[in-house]
Amino acid sequence: MAEDMFLLWGSGSPPCWRVMIALEEKNLQGYQHKLLSFEKGEHKSKEVFDVNPRGQVPSFRHGPHMINESVAACMYLENQFKSQGNQLIPSDQAGFALVYQRMIEAPNAQQKMIDVLLYNFHTPEEERQEAALKKKNEAATTEFQLWEGYLQKTGPYMAGQNFSLADVAFFPTLALAFRLGLSQNKYPKLAEYHDFLKDRPSIKATWAQHWLENPPFKSPPLAIL
Amino acid sequence: MAEDMFLLWGSGSPPCWRVMIALEEKNLQGYQHKLLSFEKGEHKSKEVFDVNPRGQVPSFRHGPHMINESVAACMYLENQFKSQGNQLIPSDQAGFALVYQRMIEAPNAQQKMIDVLLYNFHTPEEERQEAALKKKNEAATTEFQLWEGYLQKTGPYMAGQNFSLADVAFFPTLALAFRLGLSQNKYPKLAEYHDFLKDRPSIKATWAQHWLENPPFKSPPLAIL
Repeated sequence: MAEDMFLLWGSGSPPCWRVMIALEEKNLQGYQHKLLSFEKGEHKSKEVFDVNPRGQVPSFRHGPHMINESVAACMYLENQFKSQGNQLIPSDQAGFALVYQRMIEAPNAQQKMIDVLLYNFHTPEEERQEAALKKKNEAATTEFQLWEGYLQKTGPYMAGQNFSLADVAFFPTLALAFRLGLSQNKYPKLAEYHDFLKDRPSIKATWAQHWLENPPFKSPPLAIL
Repeated sequence: MAEDMFLLWGSGSPPCWRVMIALEEKNLQGYQHKLLSFEKGEHKSKEVFDVNPRGQVPSFRHGPHMINESVAACMYLENQFKSQGNQLIPSDQAGFALVYQRMIEAPNAQQKMIDVLLYNFHTPEEERQEAALKKKNEAATTEFQLWEGYLQKTGPYMAGQNFSLADVAFFPTLALAFRLGLSQNKYPKLAEYHDFLKDRPSIKATWAQHWLENPPFKSPPLAIL
């Protein structure tokens, strides 16, 4: 059933990982895929631009239908394969509302983290300003504190008692943040959530191979948060 | 039916406007609402933080269910009131995929525009750098060119032959961009689309009152794009 699906992806990318988790959850193993190397700049290749004018991965295709936005692809999969695999959007109104809220909110966490990383690694020396970096660090800290608070209210999953698209959307960013040094001590609920979910079959099956092979950084960039 | 809905909103805010258009399209007039003043900082009041920890509008409530992310609120309304008012997500697989893609992609346009505006109006003089501003202007230009291209392929609406959540998500940002000086000459398809949609009842009924009363800026900030 998944043979007419094709995914262009990069290892360790939270948006790519979202789609891969959703495919596993919906029992859509066996899809075609191609791993691109960020290091070699393959995500900026003609192959990607031909299917995604933003020059980003993931790029997901089901038959003739392209969906490149990861959250959109996850919703598409849940809606087109409703009765297959695990239900990722609850049927009751309260659960439905909370999952939609958290799922659409999740990319904020990714963006705030990326803002810090980009500023640290890609801002030319002559453009760097401590005040600007401080603001980005504070914004990322506030963001992860928000998610810590959500879990205090509605755990063990990000939208209550069941795994959902809220987790699919948020977990990959959190896993990357911890790998990049976000303090598990400062965010105990998020750390507990991470430990709880990391062995879930859909997540374990799609964990970045190079994370397993390489230890985290010696001076992890998010340790400042 | 809409009496158990409550919206906190600010005039001219694209995310607030999205929810208001969706409510009109689903025939959910008669909802309770409160207009907050951005100028007076009311969107950062305790009233807002009590219901939205991000301190942002819109904040939308249906009965006991809070949904503050505008795109999530629009999807919630479409899904909970499927058979009421206009259908905003197509039933066919191709239309469904394209609407989800565009709808989730739309906040990119808003963010790129806001990046330019914030840098112009809110970066302290000592932190301003021409190179940084140039990058933001280029990113916003590339973004609007993308959407111009989408219309060339799939108009007259943003996802084809029918009005959908893709338009609900994108149009408010475009209307604000044109008001702030984005060149209609440089983006002829977007200009045509804007003229075509501005008189749609749901959009006309929710057009920002202060836009009608006050002329656009004399030195519109987006004229640089």
